[in-house]
Amino acid sequence: MIITMKQGSKPKDIAVVAEKIKGLGYKPHISKGKDVTIIGMIGDYAEKYKDAFESMEVVEHVSEIQKPYKLASRDFKKENTIVKVSRNVEIGGKKIHVIAGPCAIETKEQMVTTAKIVKDAGATIIRGGAYKPRSSPYAFQGLGEKGLKYLNESGSKLHMPTISEAMTVEQVEIVAKYCDIVQIGARNIQNYDLLKAAGKQTKPVLLKRGMAITIKELLLSAEYVLSQGNYSVILCERGIRTFETATRFTMDLNAVPVIKKLSHLPVVLDPSHGIGIREHVGTMAKACIAVGADGLIIEVHPQPELALSDGHQSLLPDQFKALMKDLDLVAKAVGRELLD
Amino acid sequence: MIITMKQGSKPKDIAVVAEKIKGLGYKPHISKGKDVTIIGMIGDYAEKYKDAFESMEVVEHVSEIQKPYKLASRDFKKENTIVKVSRNVEIGGKKIHVIAGPCAIETKEQMVTTAKIVKDAGATIIRGGAYKPRSSPYAFQGLGEKGLKYLNESGSKLHMPTISEAMTVEQVEIVAKYCDIVQIGARNIQNYDLLKAAGKQTKPVLLKRGMAITIKELLLSAEYVLSQGNYSVILCERGIRTFETATRFTMDLNAVPVIKKLSHLPVVLDPSHGIGIREHVGTMAKACIAVGADGLIIEVHPQPELALSDGHQSLLPDQFKALMKDLDLVAKAVGRELLD
Amino acid sequence: MIITMKQGSKPKDIAVVAEKIKGLGYKPHISKGKDVTIIGMIGDYAEKYKDAFESMEVVEHVSEIQKPYKLASRDFKKENTIVKVSRNVEIGGKKIHVIAGPCAIETKEQMVTTAKIVKDAGATIIRGGAYKPRSSPYAFQGLGEKGLKYLNESGSKLHMPTISEAMTVEQVEIVAKYCDIVQIGARNIQNYDLLKAAGKQTKPVLLKRGMAITIKELLLSAEYVLSQGNYSVILCERGIRTFETATRFTMDLNAVPVIKKLSHLPVVLDPSHGIGIREHVGTMAKACIAVGADGLIIEVHPQPELALSDGHQSLLPDQFKALMKDLDLVAKAVGRELLD
Amino acid sequence: MIITMKQGSKPKDIAVVAEKIKGLGYKPHISKGKDVTIIGMIGDYAEKYKDAFESMEVVEHVSEIQKPYKLASRDFKKENTIVKVSRNVEIGGKKIHVIAGPCAIETKEQMVTTAKIVKDAGATIIRGGAYKPRSSPYAFQGLGEKGLKYLNESGSKLHMPTISEAMTVEQVEIVAKYCDIVQIGARNIQNYDLLKAAGKQTKPVLLKRGMAITIKELLLSAEYVLSQGNYSVILCERGIRTFETATRFTMDLNAVPVIKKLSHLPVVLDPSHGIGIREHVGTMAKACIAVGADGLIIEVHPQPELALSDGHQSLLPDQFKALMKDLDLVAKAVGRELLD
Repeated sequence: MIITMKQGSKPKDIAVVAEKIKGLGYKPHISKGKDVTIIGMIGDYAEKYKDAFESMEVVEHVSEIQKPYKLASRDFKKENTIVKVSRNVEIGGKKIHVIAGPCAIETKEQMVTTAKIVKDAGATIIRGGAYKPRSSPYAFQGLGEKGLKYLNESGSKLHMPTISEAMTVEQVEIVAKYCDIVQIGARNIQNYDLLKAAGKQTKPVLLKRGMAITIKELLLSAEYVLSQGNYSVILCERGIRTFETATRFTMDLNAVPVIKKLSHLPVVLDPSHGIGIREHVGTMAKACIAVGADGLIIEVHPQPELALSDGHQSLLPDQFKALMKDLDLVAKAVGRELLD
Repeated sequence: MIITMKQGSKPKDIAVVAEKIKGLGYKPHISKGKDVTIIGMIGDYAEKYKDAFESMEVVEHVSEIQKPYKLASRDFKKENTIVKVSRNVEIGGKKIHVIAGPCAIETKEQMVTTAKIVKDAGATIIRGGAYKPRSSPYAFQGLGEKGLKYLNESGSKLHMPTISEAMTVEQVEIVAKYCDIVQIGARNIQNYDLLKAAGKQTKPVLLKRGMAITIKELLLSAEYVLSQGNYSVILCERGIRTFETATRFTMDLNAVPVIKKLSHLPVVLDPSHGIGIREHVGTMAKACIAVGADGLIIEVHPQPELALSDGHQSLLPDQFKALMKDLDLVAKAVGRELLD
Repeated sequence: MIITMKQGSKPKDIAVVAEKIKGLGYKPHISKGKDVTIIGMIGDYAEKYKDAFESMEVVEHVSEIQKPYKLASRDFKKENTIVKVSRNVEIGGKKIHVIAGPCAIETKEQMVTTAKIVKDAGATIIRGGAYKPRSSPYAFQGLGEKGLKYLNESGSKLHMPTISEAMTVEQVEIVAKYCDIVQIGARNIQNYDLLKAAGKQTKPVLLKRGMAITIKELLLSAEYVLSQGNYSVILCERGIRTFETATRFTMDLNAVPVIKKLSHLPVVLDPSHGIGIREHVGTMAKACIAVGADGLIIEVHPQPELALSDGHQSLLPDQFKALMKDLDLVAKAVGRELLD
Repeated sequence: MIITMKQGSKPKDIAVVAEKIKGLGYKPHISKGKDVTIIGMIGDYAEKYKDAFESMEVVEHVSEIQKPYKLASRDFKKENTIVKVSRNVEIGGKKIHVIAGPCAIETKEQMVTTAKIVKDAGATIIRGGAYKPRSSPYAFQGLGEKGLKYLNESGSKLHMPTISEAMTVEQVEIVAKYCDIVQIGARNIQNYDLLKAAGKQTKPVLLKRGMAITIKELLLSAEYVLSQGNYSVILCERGIRTFETATRFTMDLNAVPVIKKLSHLPVVLDPSHGIGIREHVGTMAKACIAVGADGLIIEVHPQPELALSDGHQSLLPDQFKALMKDLDLVAKAVGRELLD
């Protein structure tokens, strides 16, 4: 990192900082300009000490040069990580996987019916929420473990892997028992005990970017999971919060090439939550493929007007079916594949 | 709520929506304009069904008229809530309370020393983090229960109530055992299981607004705690995330009069995290008092350059002492009091 | 629009509002709920009076139902507008046009060379800045009219239409003299006198969305041009400002389907400014095509390291050439065409 | 500035950058770490060449160390600038000046009446908009020069200086003819030709921060005016755009101590536009004083419900009168004065 000294700092101020750097086992690189002196402190984990230098009165500011994450970084691992979800499903390779299903699991019939529909259309992973993070305590909170059983049964029947969200440390274990991927939601992306719990079990983990989390912070959250020994981490962009109110969130597709440059982890995109408006989900999904997504999450509901959660962003079965064909064309245009 | 029909909707579309409203036990109010028809659905908890109407193909959009929270609302309780923290400390009355201490508890000596300093300067509640939410897994994670013991001992010795953050359901119980106020941090403000756990115990709860959480969502998070039977809720604004990078966060002082209009709950402000730059904390603290804060959270560290967390935003003892006198003057100017 | 009365408003308060509505020539639609009364005021230009009702003490708030713009709205004109730029170039049809060239015109040779390169690669419109909006007064401010001459000569030689930015009312005339499209930049999108000047001349106008301008405000700015009688308006999304600092701006691709739903005007996207990082421009360009762009603006510079402005986001000639072929594949995948 | 080389850059890459630095007349400071090499280029105006280095393929990124503005910087001028507005009115000293009046000038009578009201309450400068930047072309656009005459007559009669906004280069001259301060609005803060025009005349200039403009950019806009020879510049914060929709804008009070640290220019705050809700303007005004404002802009209208613009944020005469007394108390508490 680079430590910029306050204007007019004296030789002894510079010496104090230099000594502190040496004391931590690094070599200070001092560059004196006419008005400003900067001191480089370069080496493994130097960024860990940013706070300690920023809090010194003689220091103007400290800027990071090296990334504060290691295991998530492409510097650490050059080739793309391919996450093995099940015998046939791997995320991060040439094939783009579509994860589809209802926002919330409501009944066994709804789950089974929807799973069948999305499989027929070409989806390869089934989703369904059993534990629902709802901003209002009066809204439907999900079926819990009963819902996971429905999801698990649907998966077994159709030979498809499944994904569902865990909101607490205990739910991580339950979701991992019934599902093939444990999802950590946007609202919990900096719930560090939850991240550690996800890192301590062995099922792949999908991390949804929070609505005001920077790319750097998302990779640091991934680092929490990776540092516990679980290397099967999938990142997911699902919309950030901006001043624009015409869409539910602003899907940040710019994040995809940036993350792929910084990290070896696969990236999945969620246009249903990202734009939050049914009629625009398909258009955004095409852009997601073009920008380099390794997978998509799309909400499908046989009767959205009866949905207990997020019905207005769920696709109808026929819309989803038509969309999958369109997406396959875009996938091929960018050298990927989606339908078999 | 107000349901706006799509342009060109037919009488039968309008009838379908009207029937659905009646089916839920409400009366539809239909207003036909030349181009657009709107349908009012007004009454308790009508907003709960927003999703169900938004997902209908014939509906253009739905706007909320009534607040989706009840217990947190000033419509529900006209007079200000005063939260009793200890025998002598009540938040929400004429007296403004200053909560002070180090960001993280590091050693027993540091905790006791700092507590003594802030008490002498006029602070009435001691803070100190034992469970620390750090964006990097490699940063200091806090002393845990041992830290809470140091905090508790400091409080007992000086006859001052204490506050510390809980990040998991289990930590809620531990923090409640050692402290007088349980803090829920900004990163966990939509961790609903944590909110419910905080609502099930009886110690006051301080809720920090997340960095991209609207005022409405903050009040809905408060509703989670209140709806479990714990009415001792204190709200806290600590900076939101914006495009501006000159400050760590953008402290949203505008939120104070808005919250006070919408809700009866007391509001505490955290200028240390809010602006994140030591030399500006005092200036912002004055503005916090002027805008109507019922309390302040200020980080103080005897040796900020040795701090393991957020040293660059912690005040030095002498700075804090001088600031408290300045704050008292502003408090008096707005009809409140701070020092005895 | 919908006027929501304050809770506890009395019959006479409601009567006052109703009378005011009648006085303006509209019919009030009153819906009384248990706690809240709402009053609909529906009809042409009703939204014009929003302020007048919001400033009444008895009114809680006013929400818009109808769009405040008319000529820019798809309600006003159902079919897509196709803007005729030159004999062979029309924006808004099946063909996607690529507008390419240097950020700033620097020398005649640089302009001619670049124009030749981009034409050979398949671009159909040449761009180049002669009047440059630079945040620092010490940065290169552009060649002015001399630059426009170079651009014009390049266009004539290669039989290609041209585009350049005007920053003042007088520059509108000069740019219109030398170029086929007058560009209004992001920083001037709410410079209303400039918009009116652009609307009073007859060359097509390209309007760049400002970095914190909502879609609604962009359409209102378009309305300024349209209302002066110039219907050849092209909208352009070039990145909005968010909390994310990893990219220069956050390109808002979500805006494309939303604008196309609300308006009949063509939409062009500028990935060079949008993401602002050379190596990611191509990836974003593909996403732009997939999301429905009618055109792209891409900066190309033969020697970016010598560029006087924005060199770090300009593509090298070979990169541009390769990209155009990739873009054509994506265009075909979404039913459009790009190369002949 | 600091140039960070790409990982794995070779000695010859480093040499190329070093040579380029030397060629520009600076001395390169090279620090080689294990993985990363950084090169310092420190000296006057080095930041001007940021672009040129960022666009090199071997460079990872470039970070600024020195400020890109000079004349606006406190490094250039240590003591506070005091802007002389009229014989008796100086902005930037101990006295806090309140600029008050209607949003838009509507009639002569309204202007004179309001001016009289605000003078009696203690305001020292009268405001009134004659050229109005309205997002809709169908909204009231202001009275133009006729309005300025009404404002000028009111000022002459009451011996008070006046301020009004100019939106074009020509209007700068007209406003300067009739008023004592020329205001550049938020929407034009990066309209550089307008800034230059304001810098070429001699009346003081008030610059309103745009809704997505950083503090650094605001100071660069000030630099445009200063560099033309007009040193009488007043900065104004009036709310930035964030995700929060409960207020019209989010007033960024954090900007005040930050600007005062970076610059010697006086800062005025506009709580009327900042929060945009009449009943909260007074509360925010108190916070503005506490945070260090050198002046306030407050909208007052004798009959807000008849206002042609922004009536819902204008104070009633009695509200304004009461507020001024409250503000004076806060001013005294922070060592300033407001009423005589």
